[in-house]
Parts: sequence; structure tokens; C-alpha cells
Amino acid sequence: MSIKRVVIVGGTHGNELTGIFLIKKWKLTPELIQRVSFETHTLLANPKAYEIGRRYVDTDLNRCFQFSCLNNPHLSSYEAQRAKVIYLTFGAKGSLEANLVVDLHSTTANMGLTIILASKHPFNLRLAAYLTSINPNVKILYSTPSSSESPYLHSICEFGCTIEVGAVAQGVLNATLFQQTEALVYSILDFVEAYNQGKQLVIKNTLTIYQTTHQIDYPRNEDGEVQAIIHHRLQFRDYEPLYPEEPIFLSFAGEEIVYQGDCVAYPVFINEAAYYEKGVAMWITKQVPEILSIK
Amino acid sequence: MSIKRVVIVGGTHGNELTGIFLIKKWKLTPELIQRVSFETHTLLANPKAYEIGRRYVDTDLNRCFQFSCLNNPHLSSYEAQRAKVIYLTFGAKGSLEANLVVDLHSTTANMGLTIILASKHPFNLRLAAYLTSINPNVKILYSTPSSSESPYLHSICEFGCTIEVGAVAQGVLNATLFQQTEALVYSILDFVEAYNQGKQLVIKNTLTIYQTTHQIDYPRNEDGEVQAIIHHRLQFRDYEPLYPEEPIFLSFAGEEIVYQGDCVAYPVFINEAAYYEKGVAMWITKQVPEILSIK
Repeated sequence: MSIKRVVIVGGTHGNELTGIFLIKKWKLTPELIQRVSFETHTLLANPKAYEIGRRYVDTDLNRCFQFSCLNNPHLSSYEAQRAKVIYLTFGAKGSLEANLVVDLHSTTANMGLTIILASKHPFNLRLAAYLTSINPNVKILYSTPSSSESPYLHSICEFGCTIEVGAVAQGVLNATLFQQTEALVYSILDFVEAYNQGKQLVIKNTLTIYQTTHQIDYPRNEDGEVQAIIHHRLQFRDYEPLYPEEPIFLSFAGEEIVYQGDCVAYPVFINEAAYYEKGVAMWITKQVPEILSIK
Repeated sequence: MSIKRVVIVGGTHGNELTGIFLIKKWKLTPELIQRVSFETHTLLANPKAYEIGRRYVDTDLNRCFQFSCLNNPHLSSYEAQRAKVIYLTFGAKGSLEANLVVDLHSTTANMGLTIILASKHPFNLRLAAYLTSINPNVKILYSTPSSSESPYLHSICEFGCTIEVGAVAQGVLNATLFQQTEALVYSILDFVEAYNQGKQLVIKNTLTIYQTTHQIDYPRNEDGEVQAIIHHRLQFRDYEPLYPEEPIFLSFAGEEIVYQGDCVAYPVFINEAAYYEKGVAMWITKQVPEILSIK
């Protein structure tokens, strides 16, 4: 099967400016994302949230793509409606059904250039391996779905990924991360072009995937108020090994709170601003080696 | 004149968490900010903005303290009303009239530990010199008022300053900056205590002040949309010398835009998230040496 249509999405969260301004750039210079063997579309996913400079208007758009939500006529939030429009456009049997989606995000965590896999489909794994082959700093993250229904926008196509770059504050453009995200997207389009044309790319056949195991919340009091900060020894140390008994939080009284796992972990999304309200101080991952089948 | 009452303010902006969580801490442990010779009060200035996780509800509270605003009965925004309540409590002839205010802020710019002087009153200059004496990393910023009416909260008392720490994303707590801000406040309280008690502190008699000269906005198109990003060579370089013809912006097409000043400058508030909407990409300052009079 060849890839006929790709959709690049920015502004799923209205205060993550990198993707939004890349979409604006490509609206003016579409030739940069055009390739011979497929169509490329762009989408500003949550324009109202961008207008008001917030992650979302009513609810997190990137948690609205379960089939049970898409098929529920009673959900009236702005984002529930946007999810339906996006799915009916670019999803299966959509008016512009796409085979591959790239959703551009940023984070206040120091996650560098992260590719979050929509699935472990061999195509996605080869794409990930290609991106790490040309830039060894790229990290591959995979979150085992908690149910068969993914809430994420990147689930609307069979192939796809989310690009998550940081650390960058909400509402801020960072030139380095902007250019690195742009380069990553061009590499993805080049990969798709080569795939469609049956060209062999130089790709390592092993891949390290950071697979999420669980989340850790901040210590909170009975009112749900945060009672400790990410420890300064953990701050900005995404993807670095964290050993049991190492400090992860510092209470406001200055007491250290240690990691209580039983083996080495690789935390990510450490101190992501948008996750305070979600009850998440960090995601814990483990390294999983993946050996790719030869195509 | 002795200082009888000090007010420490957090949450003037609802998404600058450092000050908000310090105020919460001191509500539970007021003994940390009590001294013998004066009263210390705390204030969460914009509780509604904190609840919704935004800088403000209707308008920027830290632009509401001109007398013409405080005395205007027709201003109905939440923040205009909060400003009146705050002024009537801690301002001149207020029910808890304070002599000194410390307003705690944070910024996405890499401004380290910055003291913004409310005025160049000799008391404020000595306080600033004391803080730089015990921590040479502290920077002193002063903005010549554009009119006789200051819009800033720190103008409600004769003495005072704003503490501005960064880089930290909006909606995020950073342990290092939290502890450094806390230590700065204790140093201010110790200074006031020594002042009231007539004790001599070891203070250098020279001070470098970064005095604002003007602001620079992002290049924008006719619709007001930003057309360039802070150049990666300038990002996070607050207080470092910037020479004429050095790049300050990078357009989305990759073109460098250079600084057109005629002498060395020291930019601050570079890429502050909240200033995109204010039309400010950075403040330009010059270094001004200040020689303190011997008390």
C-alpha cells in the first residue's frame, strides 16, 4: 500500500506555538512540504484555543478521539465538535482521508526531540528508526494504550506519530526547536516519498523505545493542592536513568521525597505545565529494545 | 523613619507559581517571615486568575495601579477592583498601610534573580546594594517611569521592589528558583530588621543598574501576526551585551534580522511569553553605575 495523503497538524493545543507557526509558514510556502508521490495537507486543529492563548477552550482536544466520543452526539464542547470535524475530514472514510498524520506538540519538559508512536505498526517503527538514524538525539516514546480506544489525535490514521519538543514554555517560540521540528517533518516526508517509490533508505535495524509503565503525581494535601516541587536534581533530566531511592520531589519545607520504584526508570514529561491539572508530575518509562524486521 | 509593616505579594499574575506557592508556604509557617521590629503580611493578589491558571481574568493587574485607575469608579474589570482593594488595604492610609512591598514574579526570560526597583529612593538603592553584596548574581533593573503614575503594584508603598525570577515556564514550579526567591525575601526582611534597629550592614557603595531605554517588538505583518522568532544566539542571553548589527530575530524563512542600535545594549525580558500580546520581544537597557551615599 502506498501513502496517498499526509496531514500535518499544529495547534492541537492552542498555547504550543511551534506547530502553529510551522503550519502558518507552510500555508505561505506549501512547496516545502510537497512531494511527488503523495498529497500533504496542513491543519490548525484548535484555532479558538490559539486565539485565546490557551491549551483548550472547554476540554483537551488531544483526549477527544476515542470512537465512543466521536460517535456521541451529546458531547457539545468545542473540542468534542472539532474532533468530529477533524475525524470526518482526515479519518477513515473522511472527505480527505489521510494515511499518515504528524501532530506537532511542545512541552515544558526537557524532552528534546521526541517521537511518540501512534502504534507499533512496522511502518511506524521503520519511520522511527529512520529518524533516529539521521539524528541520534531523537527519542522514541510509546505508551501502551489503556484501552482499545485511543484518545489522541494521531490515532485518526493507520500510520502516524506525535512530535513532542522541549523544553519550551507555553506561549513561546524557540528558534532552535522550531528549526529542529521543521527538519524532522521534512525527514518524515522524505521517508514517505522513499517508501512510496520503493527506495531503500539506510536504517539501523535496532531501536530503543521508551515505553511508559505508569505515571507519578505530585504529593498533594486533602484539598488536592500540590505539596512538593520536582527535585532540582530531576528537573530537566528527562530520559536520564532514575534509580530507586533517588530524590524526585522537594517538599515546600525542604524535605526530599525519593523514587520508590524497584529498578531503574527513565522519567519523561517531568514538570510539564499542562499536567499539573491532570495529576501527573512525570511519566515513568522503561527502555525496550526493538529489532526491526527486514522489509 | 522606621518600617512598621511589610507586605509580601504573590500571584499578581495567576500563572506565575513561584510567588503563589511561597505565599501558601508562609500562610502555614508565618514565623519564617516574622521579624521583631515590624509586621509582615502576605497577599495572594489575584486569586481568580490563579484558579483559572491564567495571568489575569480581564486585564493585567500589574498595570492597574495608576491613581487615575484607582480613582476611576467606572472601571469594572475584576483586576481594576482587586487593585482598589489592595490599595485601600496596604496603600497610603490603607487599613494595613505598609511601608514596604515585595511583589514576587517569574518570567520565561532567563533573568536569573532580578530586583526591579519601584523607585531610586536611597532606601531602595541600599536594599538593592545589600542584595547584590550577599549574592553577586542578583541583577538590578530600573525602568524610568513614562509618566508620574506608575501602573505597577509595587508602587503602592514608598519603599519596595518586584522580584522577577527566570527562566521558568508559566504554570510551572522550579525548585531552584523557588528556593532562591525564598532566600531573597529573607534577605530583604533581614535588611529591614537591621535598618529598623540601626545596625550597620556590610554593603558595597557601588551598584550597577540596568536602566531600560526602550522596547523592541517582534516583526509583524499587517494583521499584527509575529513574523520572526528571537534568534537562537540571543535566546536566554538576558543581561549579556548586545552589539549593533548582531542578530536578534530569525524570520520564518530563515533570514536574520539584526539589532539596529548605535551602541552596546543589555536586553532583558527576551521572549517573555506574556509580552507577545503587549507587542514586546525584549526590553533594551543600558548599564548605569550608581554610587551610594554613605548613610
